[in-house]
Amino acid sequence: MSARRVKVGMAGLGRMGARHARNLAFRIPGAELVAGNSPSTEEREWASRELGAARVYADYAELLADRDVEAVFIATPTTEHATQIIAALEAGKHVFCEKPTSLALADCLRVEEVARRHPKLKAMIGYVRRFDPSYRDAYARVAQGAIGTPFLVKSQTTDKHDPSGFFVKFAPKSGGIFLDMSVHDIDTARWFLGGIRPLRAFATGTVAVHEGLKACGDLDNGVAMVEFEGGKMAVLQASRTMPHGHETSAEITGTTGRLTIGAGARSNRVEIADGTGIRHECTPTFYERFEEAFLLELSAFVDAVRDDTPLPLSLRDATEATRIGLAIQQSLATRRSVDIEPSA
Amino acid sequence: MSARRVKVGMAGLGRMGARHARNLAFRIPGAELVAGNSPSTEEREWASRELGAARVYADYAELLADRDVEAVFIATPTTEHATQIIAALEAGKHVFCEKPTSLALADCLRVEEVARRHPKLKAMIGYVRRFDPSYRDAYARVAQGAIGTPFLVKSQTTDKHDPSGFFVKFAPKSGGIFLDMSVHDIDTARWFLGGIRPLRAFATGTVAVHEGLKACGDLDNGVAMVEFEGGKMAVLQASRTMPHGHETSAEITGTTGRLTIGAGARSNRVEIADGTGIRHECTPTFYERFEEAFLLELSAFVDAVRDDTPLPLSLRDATEATRIGLAIQQSLATRRSVDIEPSA
Amino acid sequence: MSARRVKVGMAGLGRMGARHARNLAFRIPGAELVAGNSPSTEEREWASRELGAARVYADYAELLADRDVEAVFIATPTTEHATQIIAALEAGKHVFCEKPTSLALADCLRVEEVARRHPKLKAMIGYVRRFDPSYRDAYARVAQGAIGTPFLVKSQTTDKHDPSGFFVKFAPKSGGIFLDMSVHDIDTARWFLGGIRPLRAFATGTVAVHEGLKACGDLDNGVAMVEFEGGKMAVLQASRTMPHGHETSAEITGTTGRLTIGAGARSNRVEIADGTGIRHECTPTFYERFEEAFLLELSAFVDAVRDDTPLPLSLRDATEATRIGLAIQQSLATRRSVDIEPSA
Amino acid sequence: MSARRVKVGMAGLGRMGARHARNLAFRIPGAELVAGNSPSTEEREWASRELGAARVYADYAELLADRDVEAVFIATPTTEHATQIIAALEAGKHVFCEKPTSLALADCLRVEEVARRHPKLKAMIGYVRRFDPSYRDAYARVAQGAIGTPFLVKSQTTDKHDPSGFFVKFAPKSGGIFLDMSVHDIDTARWFLGGIRPLRAFATGTVAVHEGLKACGDLDNGVAMVEFEGGKMAVLQASRTMPHGHETSAEITGTTGRLTIGAGARSNRVEIADGTGIRHECTPTFYERFEEAFLLELSAFVDAVRDDTPLPLSLRDATEATRIGLAIQQSLATRRSVDIEPSA
Repeated sequence: MSARRVKVGMAGLGRMGARHARNLAFRIPGAELVAGNSPSTEEREWASRELGAARVYADYAELLADRDVEAVFIATPTTEHATQIIAALEAGKHVFCEKPTSLALADCLRVEEVARRHPKLKAMIGYVRRFDPSYRDAYARVAQGAIGTPFLVKSQTTDKHDPSGFFVKFAPKSGGIFLDMSVHDIDTARWFLGGIRPLRAFATGTVAVHEGLKACGDLDNGVAMVEFEGGKMAVLQASRTMPHGHETSAEITGTTGRLTIGAGARSNRVEIADGTGIRHECTPTFYERFEEAFLLELSAFVDAVRDDTPLPLSLRDATEATRIGLAIQQSLATRRSVDIEPSA
Repeated sequence: MSARRVKVGMAGLGRMGARHARNLAFRIPGAELVAGNSPSTEEREWASRELGAARVYADYAELLADRDVEAVFIATPTTEHATQIIAALEAGKHVFCEKPTSLALADCLRVEEVARRHPKLKAMIGYVRRFDPSYRDAYARVAQGAIGTPFLVKSQTTDKHDPSGFFVKFAPKSGGIFLDMSVHDIDTARWFLGGIRPLRAFATGTVAVHEGLKACGDLDNGVAMVEFEGGKMAVLQASRTMPHGHETSAEITGTTGRLTIGAGARSNRVEIADGTGIRHECTPTFYERFEEAFLLELSAFVDAVRDDTPLPLSLRDATEATRIGLAIQQSLATRRSVDIEPSA
Repeated sequence: MSARRVKVGMAGLGRMGARHARNLAFRIPGAELVAGNSPSTEEREWASRELGAARVYADYAELLADRDVEAVFIATPTTEHATQIIAALEAGKHVFCEKPTSLALADCLRVEEVARRHPKLKAMIGYVRRFDPSYRDAYARVAQGAIGTPFLVKSQTTDKHDPSGFFVKFAPKSGGIFLDMSVHDIDTARWFLGGIRPLRAFATGTVAVHEGLKACGDLDNGVAMVEFEGGKMAVLQASRTMPHGHETSAEITGTTGRLTIGAGARSNRVEIADGTGIRHECTPTFYERFEEAFLLELSAFVDAVRDDTPLPLSLRDATEATRIGLAIQQSLATRRSVDIEPSA
Repeated sequence: MSARRVKVGMAGLGRMGARHARNLAFRIPGAELVAGNSPSTEEREWASRELGAARVYADYAELLADRDVEAVFIATPTTEHATQIIAALEAGKHVFCEKPTSLALADCLRVEEVARRHPKLKAMIGYVRRFDPSYRDAYARVAQGAIGTPFLVKSQTTDKHDPSGFFVKFAPKSGGIFLDMSVHDIDTARWFLGGIRPLRAFATGTVAVHEGLKACGDLDNGVAMVEFEGGKMAVLQASRTMPHGHETSAEITGTTGRLTIGAGARSNRVEIADGTGIRHECTPTFYERFEEAFLLELSAFVDAVRDDTPLPLSLRDATEATRIGLAIQQSLATRRSVDIEPSA
């Protein structure tokens, strides 16, 4: 293949960062992983050994100083995102960052502002469902008018119950269940409804299983509604206690049809008939569900960098997901519907 | 069969009343249809001819005066329900009435009060899903602990789009989409969650297709949330514009499992593979969906009258459905979440 | 209802006979069960007590002598069918008999011959799938050309594994698994393919679980193929050891579409998500699967008697099912394909 | 990645060869595509341009003479397979070849014989279903005893109807529908049933749509049965005229459970509700269905070459698929069941 490879550096080599790094190293033909960065010695050793990355830095600043690196991929804790995105842009690097931009609206806006000052650099937040083949197929159908005018999006992010309660320790810094999980669903709703203005939100939720969440005021199950202008609506569900698997799904209803994406969460094409009836098993985590989408997401970003083509979602889209997520969390805290101010 | 038949009279011989009358005449072994009542000459003639009902009265008072009639079945306009139920009880008749009791909470409470004064008479409002074999199977599983503690009910009543817009003319007296359609879903939620206290409601909706509804402030699509005490939640959806069929369904999530009832709305056991892919057709209206449940509902009531056994739902259950429905309609009108007062 | 009721008598009050009798007594508006017949004192007492049948005879001859009885329904052992059908016709009674007509082709032909001499009497063998709403819906679609020209029918009769092996003791008189079970599938194939001439058959099978069957040379699982004239084909499967339920199903392939009937064997509209994945339970026996079809079958016969209208399947259809079933059994015995002679 | 890449050459750059070549060039981390071969100038130019393959030969002999090439991948017409496999082995190359080995049993045996003389070289025929994640998952379940002892495999290869009839011109050299399509199903049956001895076969079929096939005696639809020793059975279906898509599927029945693989042929996770009911679209061709399996197949072979580990299927397995396929074609020709001789 004659086309050149984009030289990339991976910041963050934890669970998600390691997956992205491995994909960039071996499964994205348009990318060449030239550097990595992690504060963890163990993670740096893993990257040197497994990825053949020439240079693995302890400091993020070193990664940015690496002249070879054209594009930075960030999969660090959310609290680092805004600062690291801004630093990357100011170092002249294209930047891809895991969702969300930030839990603070001001930080999201600051990222947008810096990006505007670097119009030649690509910057994208990784709302992965936008790259999933099934979500894309549904979106293409909507665009072709297959369901008339869409007016209702029901979307859920529901994780399989993890008896270890591993995630409980991350809850205090997660921003709450809706900011942590439902930003994906908010982005899905905005994508399918056309990026229109949200008017108000209402939410409720409960600790159904993980009592440990009560200490930080978080929940393991919640539902929310968002009303948009023009009679558009979204219903969101977040759960950390599904018995059967990770079942991220969405239902888009329009005036002449309805599309459902991901319902059933089939892990593969096998169906089992036994004493329990007829059943299929389900994708255990978001990673099995979206493995192909993660590849396509990285490829799309790399291609946009190489060919200087537009990205399918903007930093503003990511800001809006945070902004609506914050309103939902506020409704949860006040137990009242919350009006959402127009964005600047 | 040696068991005696309960002598019943049918008040209201319109679309739904005619179906009930035909069922009581021919398909409920425990019932004997001895009289009917309708203000319409045409309907009375139909009943005489088709049902072989000996006596078909123009006035409801005549039906109540018929000494032979032990139990009255009411399928008249909702505005008549409360008055007719009360008159039946005061005439010493058992009474089954189509849902809802009334659109006015005061009337619901008055019905309850009169019924309390006639403890030997059976009185039930026809929330038919309580008798549907699939809903009952799900309820039995929940009762057996199959899903742990249930905490979330998502329930929808979604009619197939009727291009004629026939229902638009009934909208002004319907009480609004949630009072008209979602009372079934409210009752389902209360049934599965254990009849607990509602705390607040929020709703939104739109006129997606039937512009004619705007004249009376009604909608053709809406979603609502109800928060109950103890962290229980309900999400409701009502639609009059589904492209594919009547798809009433419910999803009950508990701490260890989830049950889904009615999703897919299969009209039968046929699957069609052709140029469109692989598909099944859907139940066109609520009647095809609940035909068996309507029979079981009538049978259950007739058996309870004959054997003096308890009914599976109370007038209070029906009152609560109206009360929560009113709160949802109020939220829709005010675009704010609405607190729900404790019932007396 | 003004229409008169057909006075019927039930011969055989065992498991299937009792079901038919109960249906005729209480659930078929057009029928009046006036008499019964069983050699078993216990069954006769049950019928008197539960059905309110005025006259329950020990001898079949007495039932035929009952002048009140217009139509006889036979659900006795298969070995009795031919003789009893013939006796009923010669006594001037209409006759409905459970499938098959007989295990012997000569008896089938004799029944046909006697029936021809009584052209005013209705006689039908109960191939119940012809009355199932899903099979009828599929048939109507085929008749309307929805799949072009049908050329392949795959049909199966597969019972849920019964660990008690109850059926093993009936095996010696059953005619073998294909004559016992697959005659339904043969009839389905002939129905959908247009009653055309069979050319040859091939079969194989095994004792997978019930070793007791080996004593009489029967099997608990088998598959067979039938080739018809004009390039039409049928693939049949019979099983007595399905782990999940009774899953009778059929697949009809035509030049422009394919219809599948009954696959999945859903017991109702409930779906369960739990630690096993997502599943539905299945109909446990043929009776739950075909309960509605049995009612429609009896109704159709009763209506045909009352209104003197044609029946949807002929005695010749039933004879052909036996004839092809015998060829399949012969292939099984010889382990060779068997040519099927043209019928007389 | 430190692990070395296996240097491979691709023989045949037509439709399937081009796909394999592209996969080897860009998507198989363990492989390096160093050379290609095609008699077609156009295909050679494509390979030079798109794959960056340094050397693309007109003659297969040149490819074998390329010292750099460690393993040859063959996707040429079936008539070339045996000769080319043998030449590759004799040139000291590992060899992967698309199915089938040959349409002639003698050639299959000759390939086996040559391979035995080169025990250090890997040789495998590409029965791709053995590498599909769903087939593998099912196989792992069977191996773990999830369905007891498997005794019946129903397997189908059914292509979507191609109105252009493109394939008709290949029919004369295809060996007939069962040798062309059903060898996959035969291999699946043998894999799941444990590679046991076949006893006899029976087949029938028809030209349902493509009249052009009659000229060479081929069919567009057929069904076959194979009886194996020990009461094991296979039912095979081949079709070139499916209306809805390519639906390769298999059903494995055992003494305590049943597994179904691939039924429904869902193209993705989208479900569409519209005026036709509720439907999903289907995989259009075998390539969309097995795209991932083709990658895994190539990876598995490359890894086995690099690490000198055993292959999951043997040349004998491939020979047996041809041998049983030939028996089925013979049954079709003679319209009689055909006994299958024990293999040498």
